[in-house]
Amino acid sequence: MSKKEPLFNSNCPIPITDYDKVLLAHGGGGSLSNKLIEKMFFHEFDNEILNKMHDGAVFDTQEGKMAFSTDSFVIQPIFFPGGNIGELAVNGTVNDLACCGAVPQYLSLSFIIEEGFSMDDLWKIVQSIKSAADKADVKIVTGDTKVVEKGKADKIFINTSGVGIVKKGLTISPKNCNTGDKIIVTGTIADHGICIMSLRAGLEFETQIESDTAPLNQMVNEILNVSDKIKVLRDPTRGGLASTLNEIASSSGKGILLYEDKIPVREDVKGVCEMLGLDPLYVANEGKLLIFVDADDAEKVLKTVKNNEYGKHAAIIGEVQELNDKIVKLKTTIGTTRIVDMISGEQLPRIC
Amino acid sequence: MSKKEPLFNSNCPIPITDYDKVLLAHGGGGSLSNKLIEKMFFHEFDNEILNKMHDGAVFDTQEGKMAFSTDSFVIQPIFFPGGNIGELAVNGTVNDLACCGAVPQYLSLSFIIEEGFSMDDLWKIVQSIKSAADKADVKIVTGDTKVVEKGKADKIFINTSGVGIVKKGLTISPKNCNTGDKIIVTGTIADHGICIMSLRAGLEFETQIESDTAPLNQMVNEILNVSDKIKVLRDPTRGGLASTLNEIASSSGKGILLYEDKIPVREDVKGVCEMLGLDPLYVANEGKLLIFVDADDAEKVLKTVKNNEYGKHAAIIGEVQELNDKIVKLKTTIGTTRIVDMISGEQLPRIC
Repeated sequence: MSKKEPLFNSNCPIPITDYDKVLLAHGGGGSLSNKLIEKMFFHEFDNEILNKMHDGAVFDTQEGKMAFSTDSFVIQPIFFPGGNIGELAVNGTVNDLACCGAVPQYLSLSFIIEEGFSMDDLWKIVQSIKSAADKADVKIVTGDTKVVEKGKADKIFINTSGVGIVKKGLTISPKNCNTGDKIIVTGTIADHGICIMSLRAGLEFETQIESDTAPLNQMVNEILNVSDKIKVLRDPTRGGLASTLNEIASSSGKGILLYEDKIPVREDVKGVCEMLGLDPLYVANEGKLLIFVDADDAEKVLKTVKNNEYGKHAAIIGEVQELNDKIVKLKTTIGTTRIVDMISGEQLPRIC
Repeated sequence: MSKKEPLFNSNCPIPITDYDKVLLAHGGGGSLSNKLIEKMFFHEFDNEILNKMHDGAVFDTQEGKMAFSTDSFVIQPIFFPGGNIGELAVNGTVNDLACCGAVPQYLSLSFIIEEGFSMDDLWKIVQSIKSAADKADVKIVTGDTKVVEKGKADKIFINTSGVGIVKKGLTISPKNCNTGDKIIVTGTIADHGICIMSLRAGLEFETQIESDTAPLNQMVNEILNVSDKIKVLRDPTRGGLASTLNEIASSSGKGILLYEDKIPVREDVKGVCEMLGLDPLYVANEGKLLIFVDADDAEKVLKTVKNNEYGKHAAIIGEVQELNDKIVKLKTTIGTTRIVDMISGEQLPRIC
């Protein structure tokens, strides 16, 4: 489903003349819960494992390594240009698994819904989840639904957890970093955070800034196929590029040098950042990867990324250096160098 | 840790003179988030897989079958006689995995915390999670923390997801049910629901009614070791015994006959049920199993359950019959027979 053409099917399988709002009883474990689960969730996510309707999903595994990840999504607003909380929840966990070097396979899906939430909005979210899961080639195999009283949650919170098979022989870890490794970012930074921030601030622009939410597992697959010298994969979400790079520097014990003029930022995003006094390095992304790769393979990997639909604006933005241990430095466009710290506080609550 | 002797260590590793409340920034992905995660969560859950601090956990798997389950916990109040939301969150997912015939191995842990939540209460919950995980012999290997603005959630919500290895050759499914199979409940029913309901209603009794929250994976292990004729395992949580049995009847296509005089209910729980006009069959349990087993093995399995610390009051309470398809009937103590329907609405919101 293209982001430009939302395909929401308004034909919600729960007759919305009966219940156009979610009731406490829809999370009560009785027949209304069952109706919601069967008519909406099972209807949409239909697959052999889920359909067994057990307390959990059971599936085949092979000898090897498995990745397991979890994320709760509390983004506000729940619908935004480029996506919604449902799509974000699928892509978030898919990307976390991909960053472990895994092929994501199965997701769990757990809703906490505020009493009175629109059944039609729930249906839109469920359809987006299905569409995102199909795009990322993962299955929703188990789930849970809780409803809390009006005022005790904010519309809807979604947890996804997921499992995937790690490619044989692969270890993705900051510990692998060596001096000279190149750092690739797979596209323009700060799109997601600035999209949400603009919405909340009521800012309007000639061109709409969309969230970059996207599944990156196929891209990861492609780069692991062309290079066996990938050291680290990480998606710079909350806290942005700066926080993620600081974490990697800290875990690897190495320094990182960034070149400001190489970091891709959309002009309109840059404009909003200036207007709001924000540094795009600290703003969240939901469809970008940081790739640390041996210098020998950097150009090859960059080319592969650029050929992927989500990697068109990829660039080599820095490298691993000895520096003073564990710090991130930025060589600015005017030629000075400054330290890029981890953000201490909260730039923007509920960005994901 | 015995339930009777809460061992909360007040020595919270986050200096509570700095922050005695959870701030939005503790969920922001920056240095305050990192401090919370490292000083509190990593400190407490310390294990080799978690310590890699990646976006997800990576662990070894074998060829075979794996179970995967998820649950979000929104119980109110978060502390109650016999447990708290943290312990409940561990036991709930452990039991769901055990009911798939799996040995639970790894859990994910995801918090949604309301801004201003007591750091000390968070620490108590984290310690309970650790203690419950140890008792159930599972590891917390990955997690997530989100903080939402004051008034946008109710104190704390917890999602746990989990994976475990299914015993070789085992298929636990209502489809296995045959006429004549016996139904065992592993102890007194309705304890958890009545504990929470009494708390909320402000009822006081001579003896305190405690939640039955408990990990049942060891018990499942024991019964699977003595019998290869276990057909169904299910923990009757939300919606109680009646809803779970109706689900099993519906999936199996068989009828179920229950003997009211065999169903164990504590006298004080019975008293509260009468006072509040509730049927204990519909009240939630958090430490009980329903076991469907071939009649030949029923006594052997019952004996095994009774030897387990959580199974002392187990009883055979009914059997699978042809009946009219898919219904649950109760033979009452006065000799009449009535149909036990699935609950339609919500007896008690936020029971788990």
